[in-house]
Amino acid sequence: MKVNVTDYQKILNQIQSELSEVKVTGKVASYIPELAKVPADKFGMHLYNLEGESFCFGDSDARFSTQSISKVLSLALAMKTIGGDLWKRVGVEPSGAKFNSLSLLEDNFGIPRNPFINAGALVVADVLVSNFSNPKAAFLTFLHELTGDDTIAYDEVVAASEKSEGYRNFALANYLKSFGNMENDVEEVLDFYFHQCSIAMSCKELAQAFIVFANQGKLLHSDRQFLTGQQVKRINALMLTCGFYDEAGEFSFEVGLPGKSGVGGGIVAVHPNHYAVAVWSPPLNPKGNSELGMAALERLTTLTGYSIF
Amino acid sequence: MKVNVTDYQKILNQIQSELSEVKVTGKVASYIPELAKVPADKFGMHLYNLEGESFCFGDSDARFSTQSISKVLSLALAMKTIGGDLWKRVGVEPSGAKFNSLSLLEDNFGIPRNPFINAGALVVADVLVSNFSNPKAAFLTFLHELTGDDTIAYDEVVAASEKSEGYRNFALANYLKSFGNMENDVEEVLDFYFHQCSIAMSCKELAQAFIVFANQGKLLHSDRQFLTGQQVKRINALMLTCGFYDEAGEFSFEVGLPGKSGVGGGIVAVHPNHYAVAVWSPPLNPKGNSELGMAALERLTTLTGYSIF
Amino acid sequence: MKVNVTDYQKILNQIQSELSEVKVTGKVASYIPELAKVPADKFGMHLYNLEGESFCFGDSDARFSTQSISKVLSLALAMKTIGGDLWKRVGVEPSGAKFNSLSLLEDNFGIPRNPFINAGALVVADVLVSNFSNPKAAFLTFLHELTGDDTIAYDEVVAASEKSEGYRNFALANYLKSFGNMENDVEEVLDFYFHQCSIAMSCKELAQAFIVFANQGKLLHSDRQFLTGQQVKRINALMLTCGFYDEAGEFSFEVGLPGKSGVGGGIVAVHPNHYAVAVWSPPLNPKGNSELGMAALERLTTLTGYSIF
Amino acid sequence: MKVNVTDYQKILNQIQSELSEVKVTGKVASYIPELAKVPADKFGMHLYNLEGESFCFGDSDARFSTQSISKVLSLALAMKTIGGDLWKRVGVEPSGAKFNSLSLLEDNFGIPRNPFINAGALVVADVLVSNFSNPKAAFLTFLHELTGDDTIAYDEVVAASEKSEGYRNFALANYLKSFGNMENDVEEVLDFYFHQCSIAMSCKELAQAFIVFANQGKLLHSDRQFLTGQQVKRINALMLTCGFYDEAGEFSFEVGLPGKSGVGGGIVAVHPNHYAVAVWSPPLNPKGNSELGMAALERLTTLTGYSIF
Repeated sequence: MKVNVTDYQKILNQIQSELSEVKVTGKVASYIPELAKVPADKFGMHLYNLEGESFCFGDSDARFSTQSISKVLSLALAMKTIGGDLWKRVGVEPSGAKFNSLSLLEDNFGIPRNPFINAGALVVADVLVSNFSNPKAAFLTFLHELTGDDTIAYDEVVAASEKSEGYRNFALANYLKSFGNMENDVEEVLDFYFHQCSIAMSCKELAQAFIVFANQGKLLHSDRQFLTGQQVKRINALMLTCGFYDEAGEFSFEVGLPGKSGVGGGIVAVHPNHYAVAVWSPPLNPKGNSELGMAALERLTTLTGYSIF
Repeated sequence: MKVNVTDYQKILNQIQSELSEVKVTGKVASYIPELAKVPADKFGMHLYNLEGESFCFGDSDARFSTQSISKVLSLALAMKTIGGDLWKRVGVEPSGAKFNSLSLLEDNFGIPRNPFINAGALVVADVLVSNFSNPKAAFLTFLHELTGDDTIAYDEVVAASEKSEGYRNFALANYLKSFGNMENDVEEVLDFYFHQCSIAMSCKELAQAFIVFANQGKLLHSDRQFLTGQQVKRINALMLTCGFYDEAGEFSFEVGLPGKSGVGGGIVAVHPNHYAVAVWSPPLNPKGNSELGMAALERLTTLTGYSIF
Repeated sequence: MKVNVTDYQKILNQIQSELSEVKVTGKVASYIPELAKVPADKFGMHLYNLEGESFCFGDSDARFSTQSISKVLSLALAMKTIGGDLWKRVGVEPSGAKFNSLSLLEDNFGIPRNPFINAGALVVADVLVSNFSNPKAAFLTFLHELTGDDTIAYDEVVAASEKSEGYRNFALANYLKSFGNMENDVEEVLDFYFHQCSIAMSCKELAQAFIVFANQGKLLHSDRQFLTGQQVKRINALMLTCGFYDEAGEFSFEVGLPGKSGVGGGIVAVHPNHYAVAVWSPPLNPKGNSELGMAALERLTTLTGYSIF
Repeated sequence: MKVNVTDYQKILNQIQSELSEVKVTGKVASYIPELAKVPADKFGMHLYNLEGESFCFGDSDARFSTQSISKVLSLALAMKTIGGDLWKRVGVEPSGAKFNSLSLLEDNFGIPRNPFINAGALVVADVLVSNFSNPKAAFLTFLHELTGDDTIAYDEVVAASEKSEGYRNFALANYLKSFGNMENDVEEVLDFYFHQCSIAMSCKELAQAFIVFANQGKLLHSDRQFLTGQQVKRINALMLTCGFYDEAGEFSFEVGLPGKSGVGGGIVAVHPNHYAVAVWSPPLNPKGNSELGMAALERLTTLTGYSIF
């Protein structure tokens, strides 16, 4: 890696400048009012490297709804909590299908293809509900330790709104239950899940949270080994193969970094041993990933000349 | 049709005699305890013709859980109530899949393939919940008028048991709701649906209920035009193409009559302009249809030499 | 059945008159030039009853390409030749998919769902190639005996054209071969199959050919038992459940007769113990069935007041 | 990277020693006799690093049938030849299905999900047939330049045997042709494809061929820029997400390197900027990947402590 500090900021500036010219054709997620009312022109990016240096532009300090990005963090907590037993209940293969598909469960006896499709994330949520007396508190504590920032919190309005419209997730949870792959009450698991997805974080906070995946499992702010090296390797592998639903191959092909997107318009990506980066722009492409976010990260690995490949 | 009264009873006697020798390999449905404890050796058959004559053998007067057979009756009530508008919300094509499959919904924007797969029957239930202030009472009234027998009732124990294990149906109902194809609360529709399926009737009562489909829509006991000729034609057509899940073709091929099976081990079939017949034997073949019931009806059309084909 | 001679002709006249007003939106099949150049306004119908009486209108004497209608006739010859062994190699269930789908084979170890989807018809063709030294001659002889008309012949131009564009059928045949469900050379089976589909017949000739299915297997012109009653029952059952691809339920629901369509715009239907009827109008609806043909047959069973249901 | 020369050889020795104890349960591929007769106990590994150093054990110099590993090399030649136009005809997403599945094509209008499933590799083969007057010679020349070894050759016996049993590939090619996604004659494309898959190479030769993907596109033996950095990034991304059919996630998760397997029992993997490695052991696991090969590479990244993640 020959990219130095000056370069990173210059490259981010260039990305901001290039992409501010782009005519965005995507649409902001609108299935709940709380997401629909986020201004479409929000745009920010924050890169945080292993030297602890930060580079950013735009709305990088504004919090937004992390949504599916939170699935990486709940997965990390579940792996930390029950280890490899998790893989008896959820697979590690890309799905070749949409994030909320039920059909693949049917072919697979209720074992979701991976932990990042909704069905898989519900199994992860079920694991946390089984293992913590207060799973919502436990997840927040985990996030506070991970980031060193104890202001990160659930957005109760978003969580309630998700719940009121979450028929597809109720369907998935009941379907898993019918296959015996859900230990707890459907209502309880979904209450946790909707809260988990409602976590609001900024690009800066996300980059700080995900630096652990670039740092072999060590927290950067405390030098504590928070996850094992093998856990981090596996989570990164899963982000690469499964982090973007039916566009995982495209992201791997164009960007070449492990990453995870959310319908709130955020994307976070990790260059192991180098940096974590988060970008936010609400309009989504037809596959449900932030249109400008995808472009910004493609520019990042092209302009730095480095990806994991 | 050259089959006369003496022949019918002789043929039923022959069926009973032939099939009592058969070594049954199927299993009684066991997903709820109430069905599991029904004795496997129950076997009865009742044929009721347009002349009002009855022919029967065995346990033809014992009531059993009609289960999916009730879907034909709820469909008839829905068609009587809202007419052709029903077909905007549910299709008329065989599914080529199992009765509780969710996958086909996904390809079809939430429109179930036909009213006899569970998803379709839930849409029919939703129609009844929307159109009657007390749908459970309305459905009983409909059955009482249809059969002239007001002792027919819900089995509350079966209904409660279905509800406690009905995760797959909760999944289906929520899935339909996510597509906008369920107007009422999921809980309310399922409460009706589980009751509808719990209706207990004997072979004799089923034959009397289904004679309307052999009689161009007229009740036999009162000569009242209860359903239109076109409604009956369509319901018969649906029974023929979709009445046996993934074995509809086989039933049509071997038996050659419109019919409908239930996991309680009952099968009812209709020879338009001639008779209605019901048979009951709890052990089910791998496709979920009564093993002896299928055989009995195949013998019936072979021995009489008449089917609709 | 209270329909008399005068009624049939009156009803056909009414159908012609009603439907000549209809604005057809379908398109003539164009995947080979020979079908594309057939005039879209051709329209004829011929009903032939068990009394040997004929009723018709329009272009009922003009020959057209029977295409998939011929699958019923090759099936009849295969059943006559090898009996029930056929059902080890092909199923009897509706497919819930398009006529030339390959995907269902994959789920089913190379056993086509039924003999009327292309894959199933190719297995039937393979059976004929295995059992006749000159299968093309044998099939013609069968047709000549069936109809009493030895002018019926292959259209070599259509057959050659099908072959030059038949990549999907080459794919299906090779796929069957990969599963071990094709005994002969792919080229040889397809040569027979493309010829079989090229048979040209008029509505009149089709009605005369299919009257055997209304007459319990007896030829009407010679009183010879040509097929067994059980073979006829099964073929009729298959036409009803599988004769219209993904629109079989709709046809059963609207028309209520066993039938079979072809992309040449022909449809033939059978009312067992009453009549056979053929209709021809080249424009096809989106499911690939003759638009006016479907309408004409729906009018027929509605105006006569009789279907098998 | 803190792995030094001594370490690599020690690690390979340890892998050989550990895995020689393992009781292999997989089966050698047997769909053609030439593969079936390869001794099951062959086992070799060769790692080649950017310093030009080699480390190996066992049968690392014995040639075996590369089979699907060759798809990476034909893809590289196609990208070098027509650039990004290739992606109009083939996707970059993992398939979630078996390597020779036809069903996904159906959902996708004949565009294969990626270039490593058979359908995608056939499109790549078609591109080469379209762009070279003698594609077989051109592919060999490409391999000779890539490796600096002009003894690499087709195995004509294997190619002929594949052809005689290749019904599934004939089906795929005809299916692609039916969608208009195959420009040349099916026979011609398959002749090239079966030859391409028959290429015989040793672990040593494969490691030398694939070092270009670890070296940003430069040949190591001549320092010539053979592929662009972006081409290499994309090919590595595709190997990671799609290189192991329905086990790509597992390989990424356990090994954490881009790689490609073949039914001959070979696997090649690349650690960008570090090394290329090939391993060979014929018995295949149920997903069709070398059982010991998977284990050997998992041990490699675990013992070195380094993967791309």
